[in-house]
Amino acid sequence: MALEQPLPAVRGQLRIRSLLARQCLAEFLSVFVLMLLTQGAVAQAVTSGETKGNFFTMFLAGSLAVTVAIYVGGNVSGAHLNPAFSLAMCLLGRLPWTKLPIYSFMQLLSSFCASGATYILYYDALQNYTGGNLTVTGPKETASIFATYPAPYLSLNNGFLDQVLGTGILIVGLLAILDRQNKGVPAGLEPVVVGLLVLVIGLSMGANCGAPINPARDLGPRLFTYVAGWGPEVFRWEMAPGTVLYSAKVSVPESPAFFS
Amino acid sequence: MALEQPLPAVRGQLRIRSLLARQCLAEFLSVFVLMLLTQGAVAQAVTSGETKGNFFTMFLAGSLAVTVAIYVGGNVSGAHLNPAFSLAMCLLGRLPWTKLPIYSFMQLLSSFCASGATYILYYDALQNYTGGNLTVTGPKETASIFATYPAPYLSLNNGFLDQVLGTGILIVGLLAILDRQNKGVPAGLEPVVVGLLVLVIGLSMGANCGAPINPARDLGPRLFTYVAGWGPEVFRWEMAPGTVLYSAKVSVPESPAFFS
Amino acid sequence: MALEQPLPAVRGQLRIRSLLARQCLAEFLSVFVLMLLTQGAVAQAVTSGETKGNFFTMFLAGSLAVTVAIYVGGNVSGAHLNPAFSLAMCLLGRLPWTKLPIYSFMQLLSSFCASGATYILYYDALQNYTGGNLTVTGPKETASIFATYPAPYLSLNNGFLDQVLGTGILIVGLLAILDRQNKGVPAGLEPVVVGLLVLVIGLSMGANCGAPINPARDLGPRLFTYVAGWGPEVFRWEMAPGTVLYSAKVSVPESPAFFS
Amino acid sequence: MALEQPLPAVRGQLRIRSLLARQCLAEFLSVFVLMLLTQGAVAQAVTSGETKGNFFTMFLAGSLAVTVAIYVGGNVSGAHLNPAFSLAMCLLGRLPWTKLPIYSFMQLLSSFCASGATYILYYDALQNYTGGNLTVTGPKETASIFATYPAPYLSLNNGFLDQVLGTGILIVGLLAILDRQNKGVPAGLEPVVVGLLVLVIGLSMGANCGAPINPARDLGPRLFTYVAGWGPEVFRWEMAPGTVLYSAKVSVPESPAFFS
Repeated sequence: MALEQPLPAVRGQLRIRSLLARQCLAEFLSVFVLMLLTQGAVAQAVTSGETKGNFFTMFLAGSLAVTVAIYVGGNVSGAHLNPAFSLAMCLLGRLPWTKLPIYSFMQLLSSFCASGATYILYYDALQNYTGGNLTVTGPKETASIFATYPAPYLSLNNGFLDQVLGTGILIVGLLAILDRQNKGVPAGLEPVVVGLLVLVIGLSMGANCGAPINPARDLGPRLFTYVAGWGPEVFRWEMAPGTVLYSAKVSVPESPAFFS
Repeated sequence: MALEQPLPAVRGQLRIRSLLARQCLAEFLSVFVLMLLTQGAVAQAVTSGETKGNFFTMFLAGSLAVTVAIYVGGNVSGAHLNPAFSLAMCLLGRLPWTKLPIYSFMQLLSSFCASGATYILYYDALQNYTGGNLTVTGPKETASIFATYPAPYLSLNNGFLDQVLGTGILIVGLLAILDRQNKGVPAGLEPVVVGLLVLVIGLSMGANCGAPINPARDLGPRLFTYVAGWGPEVFRWEMAPGTVLYSAKVSVPESPAFFS
Repeated sequence: MALEQPLPAVRGQLRIRSLLARQCLAEFLSVFVLMLLTQGAVAQAVTSGETKGNFFTMFLAGSLAVTVAIYVGGNVSGAHLNPAFSLAMCLLGRLPWTKLPIYSFMQLLSSFCASGATYILYYDALQNYTGGNLTVTGPKETASIFATYPAPYLSLNNGFLDQVLGTGILIVGLLAILDRQNKGVPAGLEPVVVGLLVLVIGLSMGANCGAPINPARDLGPRLFTYVAGWGPEVFRWEMAPGTVLYSAKVSVPESPAFFS
Repeated sequence: MALEQPLPAVRGQLRIRSLLARQCLAEFLSVFVLMLLTQGAVAQAVTSGETKGNFFTMFLAGSLAVTVAIYVGGNVSGAHLNPAFSLAMCLLGRLPWTKLPIYSFMQLLSSFCASGATYILYYDALQNYTGGNLTVTGPKETASIFATYPAPYLSLNNGFLDQVLGTGILIVGLLAILDRQNKGVPAGLEPVVVGLLVLVIGLSMGANCGAPINPARDLGPRLFTYVAGWGPEVFRWEMAPGTVLYSAKVSVPESPAFFS
């Protein structure tokens, strides 16, 4: 990709830019894979009337999507998958602040594009299932294929707590899994074990909101559904509980020893 | 956490206390993660009317919760998770007797607190599902989210045998999995394989009592439900078959060769 | 177990005998764990009216039971689990012919005992489910908890072919998984991958007979049900398609390169 | 297999021919295992009226079948499983062009034979389920056991896009999993992680066509059903969306660094 044998000074500049470009591409691709597989599993269950998917396959596919996404982005961009995680990396000094807006934009752009891909992929199925009437509520609602919506009984307080607890367990689990001074997972299998962590969180803490706090994971699809014909109702609960769960903030390369 | 550069004598004392503090914290956190995820999966299934969980996801989440809990506590406290296991470690000379009450108290405290966290996390869901009427029996009972209750047909004798057999298979499986002189699991993957062991025991021997013999796992939640409004009926069957299963007594660091 | 510091000659004799004793114990324990977990999963599904188990958890638990059983017997007896496999090992010169009857007897004895343990474990559940009427046929039949019975439509020819094909795929898969000159599984994880192999065979070829050809796995439970009150009807189809599948003939320590 | 101590020149010729023979055998066996297990899982679900299988076990068994098939063919033929993948290997210079027709023929032959094996294995079950009336459509259709058919609502455009997207995600995932310069899977576990990848694609993108683009995987069974009595209707949609998914194009031994 780089010019062959450029002058050293130029080459250094090129390499930096090239690294960032590769990181942007990796982050875009990771989030795209994550979101297409996660949304696709919901679309498959919903549009088939639960004959080719159900709540369990949605959670399972969402977890395996995290696994695949980490393998995809892994050692290039770190597979942050989440602006909140990129922010945390900046605070910890592991990501330059200048990259934060770029990472966040790529994540948002990618989740928007992945929503479009899901929409096209299941276009015929959506038309067949809804009769062309795309709605946010009702028995044939399809907005939840893209963004997550809280359970009807959920209060704002409980929703907030739900997200705090879910994020807490996710972070504790991630640190434990990645901490080699503790009982670390063998190199190359972290994405699989992180997938298991995401699965158990989904099965245990997914009832209230379906998981979130990932602004990119939530905002991108919400914007897409707004544009694609579901209308402004997708913004009910403006601070909708974005998912942090399905956004596996992994890849902390040298996490500090957890209990030291 | 420790003071910077204290005098050697003081430092030694501090380090010992600090180790115990870290072990207490690790044990607390392990049990908390275990219990929150295990109870959360039941709460998710029950309060959603089985639309977001069922018996299989409960067993699966309970098993993965053990996996995560061992990663969390792993090399710090050993992730005993269970006073009975801590007692066994004392008998084997691997844990000082003075630590037994401390470990046990942390385990009990943690499972009590985790029950509280589950209660708060699913507060709206519980209110919505029960209409505010927290009961131990009946079609809308919710006490089994927290503690385990035997099947109605189960006699005391059969319940006792159930626990003895379950514990036996668990211990045989654990020793085999952790025994490096036999066919040991690669380092760092033990928690995953132990999770599989707990899953198969749950699927094969979970019908009678839902598994237990872990006084902390059982007593903590039972106390919590008593305090939180389920009333004294939670103590039916005082010696209720505590679960040993969901309390994965793992982490035996150098288990003796099993058949030597 | 051995006397302390015996004379060398005596010691040698003792050690040989001790090895065989350990192998017998290991084989007994492996088959016991395998059968208790396999039968327990069926008992859990049947006696709970499928509320705590179903066809999928039976297949899954049966596969995980193979995984656990191999870890248990693994490097001591080889975890043959099956007289047919012990016979094959003799033919290949890997097991002395004199050990064949001993291995076979232990396997048969163990599966008989495991059936008894399953019966006791689910005694109350069986009484509750059947009202005390133990039958081989009918809507409340419980004989299939212990031994396997072919589907009603199955002819003898098709049943024979079913077993041949199932055994063939099992052996090809096992050789491939264990062949280090091909793409072998990392040491210590073979039991897990063999469990996956058994699972897929169960999901793909388990409809006709529920899998078998393991004389011990089939005859032990059948004898037990005959003795325990199900009566002579358990011997319908005398040459009932014994399962080879749930008996994972693994542990071929140095399998010959598969395609060389 | 080779003559003992032949003359060097002759020996060289023999070895080459022998390598090709072994590769053909390996490719045949890989595809046979893949197809028998994949079709068997569908047959088990269909002919048992979903009592011994369902959409989830079909996807799961199809994924595990890929895992087993890669272990079987792995280091001998590369387990291409798919003429399209063999073509790609030729384009990349990793397979001599002369081997392409041979590989493709073996794959096609094998999938035809595996369809026959599935048919024989489930002969009684098929007769029992269909009453002997083998049909491509209707409530008792059984053609979908063998080949894949698109959902009735699917347009040609959407079907094409479905295959392109599915193939894209599969290739991105495979490259990421196998790329050791990125976050590669430990040696010997690639087939398991590829199985997870195939599973998530099946759960997320399997609703439209059931996955395909593998001419061998699709054409072989279609030919078999044509011959075996389902009639010419199996060729509806002549360019039926062959599956690329269930044909795991793995085994790229030294995949180029993905983002370099």
